[in-house]
Amino acid sequence: MIRRMTNRRVLTDAPLLDAAAGRTPSRRPVWFMRQAGRSLPEYREIRANIGMLESCFRPDLLAEITMQPVRRHDVDAAILFSDIVVPLKAAGVDLDIVPGRGPVVAHPVRTAADIDALPGFDPDQVAAVVEGIGAILGELTDRQALIGFAGAPFTLASYLIEGGPSRNHERTKALMHSEPALWDRLMSRIDPLITGFLRAQIDAGVDAVQLFDSWAGFLTERDYRRHVLPHSARILGAIADAGVPRIHFGVGTGELLGAMAAAGTEVVGVDWRMPLDIAARRISAALQDDDPADGRGDSARALQGNLDPAILFAGESAVQAEVRRILAEADRAIDRGDARGHIFNLGHGVLPDTDADAITRTVDFVHAQPPAPR
Amino acid sequence: MIRRMTNRRVLTDAPLLDAAAGRTPSRRPVWFMRQAGRSLPEYREIRANIGMLESCFRPDLLAEITMQPVRRHDVDAAILFSDIVVPLKAAGVDLDIVPGRGPVVAHPVRTAADIDALPGFDPDQVAAVVEGIGAILGELTDRQALIGFAGAPFTLASYLIEGGPSRNHERTKALMHSEPALWDRLMSRIDPLITGFLRAQIDAGVDAVQLFDSWAGFLTERDYRRHVLPHSARILGAIADAGVPRIHFGVGTGELLGAMAAAGTEVVGVDWRMPLDIAARRISAALQDDDPADGRGDSARALQGNLDPAILFAGESAVQAEVRRILAEADRAIDRGDARGHIFNLGHGVLPDTDADAITRTVDFVHAQPPAPR
Repeated sequence: MIRRMTNRRVLTDAPLLDAAAGRTPSRRPVWFMRQAGRSLPEYREIRANIGMLESCFRPDLLAEITMQPVRRHDVDAAILFSDIVVPLKAAGVDLDIVPGRGPVVAHPVRTAADIDALPGFDPDQVAAVVEGIGAILGELTDRQALIGFAGAPFTLASYLIEGGPSRNHERTKALMHSEPALWDRLMSRIDPLITGFLRAQIDAGVDAVQLFDSWAGFLTERDYRRHVLPHSARILGAIADAGVPRIHFGVGTGELLGAMAAAGTEVVGVDWRMPLDIAARRISAALQDDDPADGRGDSARALQGNLDPAILFAGESAVQAEVRRILAEADRAIDRGDARGHIFNLGHGVLPDTDADAITRTVDFVHAQPPAPR
Repeated sequence: MIRRMTNRRVLTDAPLLDAAAGRTPSRRPVWFMRQAGRSLPEYREIRANIGMLESCFRPDLLAEITMQPVRRHDVDAAILFSDIVVPLKAAGVDLDIVPGRGPVVAHPVRTAADIDALPGFDPDQVAAVVEGIGAILGELTDRQALIGFAGAPFTLASYLIEGGPSRNHERTKALMHSEPALWDRLMSRIDPLITGFLRAQIDAGVDAVQLFDSWAGFLTERDYRRHVLPHSARILGAIADAGVPRIHFGVGTGELLGAMAAAGTEVVGVDWRMPLDIAARRISAALQDDDPADGRGDSARALQGNLDPAILFAGESAVQAEVRRILAEADRAIDRGDARGHIFNLGHGVLPDTDADAITRTVDFVHAQPPAPR
């Protein structure tokens, strides 16, 4: 292991990085979105007397919570414990995460004046996160990747405009459609917060990043491409030179996969609603439509996913049947040249009531399957 | 207009029925899911002192609420005011609709004994609904269709198993995957309740029916085809002889459209997430895969949809741009032979805070566009 100036490790046998880069991994890489969280008793204990956002800015807690599932499940990646609104909070936006509801913004952002009053990003604001990353890197083995994390600008815009979680995003879509210039101005204010937050994580040494667009699946492809993709692409493009795999994921994004891949990604996360081979074909076809000069090789991405988190409630034999199906679909996509690799994951985050042992057993089962030859 | 023994009208110039049957309608038919409801001040007034379920079993209120949007907006169809759980309530299942939460079932159904204790259907249980339908038919013109309504068995099963609305349907999916025989037994108990409820509406004279599978979009196509489609198909097949158009709709069902069409439909509802021409191509291709003997004509369905309900918050010019796009996409699908007709609608129900005048203006705008020649 060699440390560069950026603190980033050079990992030569990390299955997640190999799969992301289209190399044959030493075992099938697996991690679970929201693996650090309520499914773990040790997490519930640590969070008993401390708020969500407070724990995201305490380096010791951040490191401990991030490491808990790595120790327990032997997953191939740690995902930085964070929240989508952390860069907003860090920059000074008045918001809190309300248990049972989610992020609530004190003063929703709806006018040009509101937008112009949004604070900018300063790396000092996330010094605690950087310190936490250092602690995590000190605990991980050379085979375990640390994935950095940020919410995508559309999702942050929705929280800012709606003032909290929204079922239908009607104010957000209304602004997008009725005042596209104002929409663009808001997105352009959010972009540097996210880029800055990701850049700080990369400089601190994370091995990969995931841009998570929670609500993108509520958009048509047309709206996504016109009003969102340029911003997500700007963010992912701004960190391209770092050379870390960029994972892009949203829920219910079956129609958006090609566009999300085109934003600048090595890995596309796929929710549980569609088979990975069909997802890969859709991504590959869309990228070739976007840029017909690309050969098939250039239009293939690695896939991440896509076990339905609810299946973890259905018992071991049901889980194993679904894991086998998903691995076969991923292998087929790779065989056909539609995908470059596969990182096993859920198709959405771990549900709070999930039995932690069911997660461990699933990880073991994935690891027991031989990697597909490349 | 001629009344048959079933009370069903023979409507020779009802745009919705013409579009559903692949004939050229005299104008573009339009109705809005949840058009009868909270967006209308006259509805809020009538519901101020009466519960949701109570109003579904009061013939006078049922008729009045169903007719309110028809009078106000000049839509081409009335949708029977009802709720997904009405047949369960009618049969005697102990449940209520809790404001702000949704249907809550007093004793969730999770064991064989729970399933076997579910009541059966008796037409007398919905005599009030039948009476209400008679009153509505007395008010509609010959150009206005009355659409009957029932929830699909998967959605009802989820309410029964989870005990209320669920974000992730984990108990439902766990039962489906871990005890498929028990799952089938539950679905087989629910099927006759829905068939009976639809049959009662058809005998009372509704001109079309919509089977609404609120939660189907949470399933993979594989699970839908294996565990749900046979039941929805049985229900839709049992009413095929009535000769009324059968509309099948669910939200987030982009991957399921072909399967939902195959359940026995004349019209497939499409949510706002995908263009109608792409939806039609997917439906047509899936039906031909299912039964290669079908010519293109047999594998085309009429489409219903698909304006994003949130767009009604974006002002008139944004709405008109989206309506024009949707009509062009529908016309393209019809031109290509992938669809037989188009019924304009939202891609999901009217949102509660929608301005009623925005709905009226949208209906007027759709009607002002010339119908596509067939």
